[in-house]
Amino acid sequence: MEQLRLAVIAGDGIGQEVTLEARKAMRAALADVELVETEYALGAAHYLETGEVLDDATLASLAEHDAILLGAVGGDPADPRLAGGIIERGLLLRLRFAFDHHVNLRPTVLHPRIGSPLRDPGEIDFVVVREGTEGPYVGNGGALRQGTPHEIANETSVNTAFGVERVVRFAFELAEQRRRRLTLVHKKNVLVHAGALWQRIVDEVAVDHPEVEVDYLHVDAATIFLVDRPSRFDVIVTDNLFGDILTDLAGAVGGGIGLAASGNLNPSGAFPSMFEPVHGSAPDIAGKGIADPTAAILSAALLLEHSGHPDAGRRIRDAVDADIDGRDGTARSTSEVGDAIAGRISA
Amino acid sequence: MEQLRLAVIAGDGIGQEVTLEARKAMRAALADVELVETEYALGAAHYLETGEVLDDATLASLAEHDAILLGAVGGDPADPRLAGGIIERGLLLRLRFAFDHHVNLRPTVLHPRIGSPLRDPGEIDFVVVREGTEGPYVGNGGALRQGTPHEIANETSVNTAFGVERVVRFAFELAEQRRRRLTLVHKKNVLVHAGALWQRIVDEVAVDHPEVEVDYLHVDAATIFLVDRPSRFDVIVTDNLFGDILTDLAGAVGGGIGLAASGNLNPSGAFPSMFEPVHGSAPDIAGKGIADPTAAILSAALLLEHSGHPDAGRRIRDAVDADIDGRDGTARSTSEVGDAIAGRISA
Ligand SMILES: CC(C)[C@H](C(=O)O)[C@@H](O)C(=O)O
Ligand SMILES: CC(C)[C@H](C(=O)O)[C@@H](O)C(=O)O
Repeated sequence: MEQLRLAVIAGDGIGQEVTLEARKAMRAALADVELVETEYALGAAHYLETGEVLDDATLASLAEHDAILLGAVGGDPADPRLAGGIIERGLLLRLRFAFDHHVNLRPTVLHPRIGSPLRDPGEIDFVVVREGTEGPYVGNGGALRQGTPHEIANETSVNTAFGVERVVRFAFELAEQRRRRLTLVHKKNVLVHAGALWQRIVDEVAVDHPEVEVDYLHVDAATIFLVDRPSRFDVIVTDNLFGDILTDLAGAVGGGIGLAASGNLNPSGAFPSMFEPVHGSAPDIAGKGIADPTAAILSAALLLEHSGHPDAGRRIRDAVDADIDGRDGTARSTSEVGDAIAGRISA
Repeated sequence: MEQLRLAVIAGDGIGQEVTLEARKAMRAALADVELVETEYALGAAHYLETGEVLDDATLASLAEHDAILLGAVGGDPADPRLAGGIIERGLLLRLRFAFDHHVNLRPTVLHPRIGSPLRDPGEIDFVVVREGTEGPYVGNGGALRQGTPHEIANETSVNTAFGVERVVRFAFELAEQRRRRLTLVHKKNVLVHAGALWQRIVDEVAVDHPEVEVDYLHVDAATIFLVDRPSRFDVIVTDNLFGDILTDLAGAVGGGIGLAASGNLNPSGAFPSMFEPVHGSAPDIAGKGIADPTAAILSAALLLEHSGHPDAGRRIRDAVDADIDGRDGTARSTSEVGDAIAGRISA
């Protein structure tokens, strides 16, 4: 029987709860495939207990899988022992960089039964293709005279033609399969060097995709359109930081971050891709069994679609849609939602 | 008679139209003060005609004023002659940097009669204090092997204790006069050096303001709150780029960018402060007489309030409020709105 070797990093807080439900859905959806699941204890809690953020042996072991499912990592932001982004940079970003997850894929679809905070949302169905390995996320920063009145702290955004081109090509190919509209989002009137590079690459790749209509928005203007007319978007391609900001906003207008799924893709397959809900570990509601597992379950659907099991992914999506159709506002626990969705898949 | 020496940079597109109305309001509001207005032809159109962006003599002449009213500068973003942010960097940002406009003040108030794109906006009344002279806006970038497949383009964000402290102090003092709630917005889990500096300075200045309740949000999470619960905000303090992004979004949720005013302040008074609507030159609607001048008129109110004429500023604000109260959806031209507001001030 064919195998799917899955690494699970449930992580912190509600990550523990929602990944359980995502795994239920995957097991229900994979008919003729054996799901081999390996759990990795990693995250803020694990670090505080053991001192390990992510050692090389663990990284090498994670690499031996077909895909990674991640819940959420990160503890109390006010805990001084976690300052300096030790978990974010040392674990989450380390995985994205080490496994060359250069496409961070973040779809937003507003389900007709889900309320949007927007009065008149219209049809919302777009995908943000966020670059995942460059930009201001590279960690090229430093501080001089730290802690003094003369401190100077710098952060350098690094952008390469190689890095931009591969994600722009991915975005164009995705646009071809969708409504053939691509929007580059940047701030090229201020970040003129990085912006010129992004615009040049988009212009060059556009020649190979004459059917795709291309436009450009400054990142500030893009936030206005996301609340005033989100239906204008089909595929957005943007840098690591702008993509981070836009996809939280997109999640909110698309019915809530509790529904937002994402994939950190290595399209070459050289390393496993990693799938995670856009939401965080939510320490305030952790352990209560009330977190919405839908984003994690939809991340599992993305995982299957990008690991050679598109039909199984489709089955999860259909079950989620049916579950949402049936929602009547009754409060359900995390596992009740997960069981209901898994039940619809098996049925 | 006391004088107020005003430099006017109407600029491009609708900047020309809306500044006329802002000046009408100022003239009506200033009872015992002589308004001496000097017009400066600057902007994209002026540059395309003359080749001048902003020369040193013009800059020196601008410095001889009490305040600057700016409409909007910038032309067609697709015009290759304007590429590389030549007008934005060479004119607008040059003014902000040369005149040390380190506080970029951007209030958002949702008027009860103005529709928000949010279904349930609640009370919206907050101010973004955006740093204006540092961050990724400093122009410390460059590109290697430009135009080749091996290009690398960098942009460096520069943050100093001096620069951060003065804007943070301003924000705390503003919070003291308001609802005493201050939110630092950054991305300190990723931009760890700049983020640590901002957080340290906020923590240090907070000691001098024990009555102000302080919290922290990552910029991505802040965008979610801006659509899900904007009433949680009182004063936001943030860096130049995050402030740029958040204030466009804030303008949208606060009833539209046509109402959003801003001040580029030099609180020391060493150089004139500069006031401008947050919106741009809007080439698509320029010259039609349909632009909403309210944001420019409210920027004029801010100008008066920060130039020693708070009562005159108040008169403009009251007239704008009364005008909005009376709006019934009938379309009015730019000058009709301006005349109506100026008429209410004189009455
Ligand atoms: C936790 C943080 C480092 C991360 C990011 O900024 O990428 C998160 O916000 C996300 O969007 O996945
Ligand atoms: C035009 C541009 C340089 C400017 C900025 O980014 O500051 C504008 O967006 C603003 O917010 O005033």
